[in-house]
Amino acid sequence: MTRAAQMLETYPGDFGFDAKALAECIAACQECAQTCTACADACLAEEQVAELRSCITHNLNCAAVCTATAAVLSRQTAYDDAVTRAVLEACAAACKACGDECAHHGEMGMEHCRVCADACRRCEQACRALLVAAS
Amino acid sequence: MTRAAQMLETYPGDFGFDAKALAECIAACQECAQTCTACADACLAEEQVAELRSCITHNLNCAAVCTATAAVLSRQTAYDDAVTRAVLEACAAACKACGDECAHHGEMGMEHCRVCADACRRCEQACRALLVAAS
Amino acid sequence: MTRAAQMLETYPGDFGFDAKALAECIAACQECAQTCTACADACLAEEQVAELRSCITHNLNCAAVCTATAAVLSRQTAYDDAVTRAVLEACAAACKACGDECAHHGEMGMEHCRVCADACRRCEQACRALLVAAS
Amino acid sequence: MTRAAQMLETYPGDFGFDAKALAECIAACQECAQTCTACADACLAEEQVAELRSCITHNLNCAAVCTATAAVLSRQTAYDDAVTRAVLEACAAACKACGDECAHHGEMGMEHCRVCADACRRCEQACRALLVAAS
Repeated sequence: MTRAAQMLETYPGDFGFDAKALAECIAACQECAQTCTACADACLAEEQVAELRSCITHNLNCAAVCTATAAVLSRQTAYDDAVTRAVLEACAAACKACGDECAHHGEMGMEHCRVCADACRRCEQACRALLVAAS
Repeated sequence: MTRAAQMLETYPGDFGFDAKALAECIAACQECAQTCTACADACLAEEQVAELRSCITHNLNCAAVCTATAAVLSRQTAYDDAVTRAVLEACAAACKACGDECAHHGEMGMEHCRVCADACRRCEQACRALLVAAS
Repeated sequence: MTRAAQMLETYPGDFGFDAKALAECIAACQECAQTCTACADACLAEEQVAELRSCITHNLNCAAVCTATAAVLSRQTAYDDAVTRAVLEACAAACKACGDECAHHGEMGMEHCRVCADACRRCEQACRALLVAAS
Repeated sequence: MTRAAQMLETYPGDFGFDAKALAECIAACQECAQTCTACADACLAEEQVAELRSCITHNLNCAAVCTATAAVLSRQTAYDDAVTRAVLEACAAACKACGDECAHHGEMGMEHCRVCADACRRCEQACRALLVAAS
């Protein structure tokens, strides 16, 4: 069991989501934040960095939004549906845009972009699954 | 001139927004992030902290979203309209919810909540102004 | 293999640390950031929240520092030893203080604090291991 | 009066620092975080981006540390001296390194780096002033 799942088990109240879907989305957001930060850094180290400007910006934006989303999802006390949904929508949008960009570079042979695209897809799906579950 | 406005002036490209509206929104996001962090802390120090649980959560969520929004708005290279709009929507939603909660406590005499409600209102308006300008 | 380890494998340069120790520290920082955010939230939901003020502040500070540390460690291009060491020292200090506080409440029966203390200890050790390896 | 100063005035407890020095350091950290984020983005947009790799990394690391420092300084409830000092040391180190790098590029004619170097110097000084005041 992950530490995030343990924290949900020991939480002294109820929460607005299915615990398993919630733990999965938190884990996906954190993984995507780190992978995007590392992908921006790897793109920066590439010889053809000038062609990767758009990828770096998408990576950094996606990392920022995923980090905020993981934090919002980790707070269940006085849970607010409207805020959580808007944050999940923003996170799904950032992951979609970054995942598309990285998938393109991944197909051209950039291995870090291929790994990053996978992390973005997983996170986008986890956000959308939580949005459906909450509706 | 603020340092944010100076940075926009020295930026070596074009950007998707009116520079003045963009600088105002970045400043409002940063101010709101700090005010919300401080308001959560002030609520925590209050004797009646148990009645301020919802306010603390709103403050912390709003601070997280405002911080991410300020960072996304500070990046104009390879600007992406869909991501920016979704982030601005999330920020406006977080500021609306936190501003309503803080305004309520402000009316009951909590001075830090009154100040924080003002910061939330300013940030919500700045986000909505940018959304209108970008449409 | 974790996504963080995959990203290190596909990085197009050298990095200043042993890849395994680096991946472990990044993972520990991210886990600790999430666990501390969740522990602050769980403390806030407790009936005796007034006695947990110090724990909540330690949790929030530790989460902020761990998030920044994970991001700094995820960037290896133009690695700077002095900055990385100072950040690792700050992270170890935040984890030590939060771990001590949470361990105390964990012994009194707060399960979320017990889990959080474990995450803080793991992260403090991972930071110190990286500091030793880098010296 | 800035909103940060208003929040300190309405705080329902004591704090470990002189209010004016504290408000100045919080403002300097936030300004530096934004300026560094914008400078990384401006460097990315430059034709000679390949020569600015080190500057981009320093900017992003400095932004991450300054954001965390502003948040830690905004929390005065259950203030912890050891954690705050370690965080201020890390912030001063990040600002020093980034300020040196940006000053170098500023002298070569990069206006955004020149502005950013000023923000880094101000923040480094504010952190060191708080460290002296707290000792």
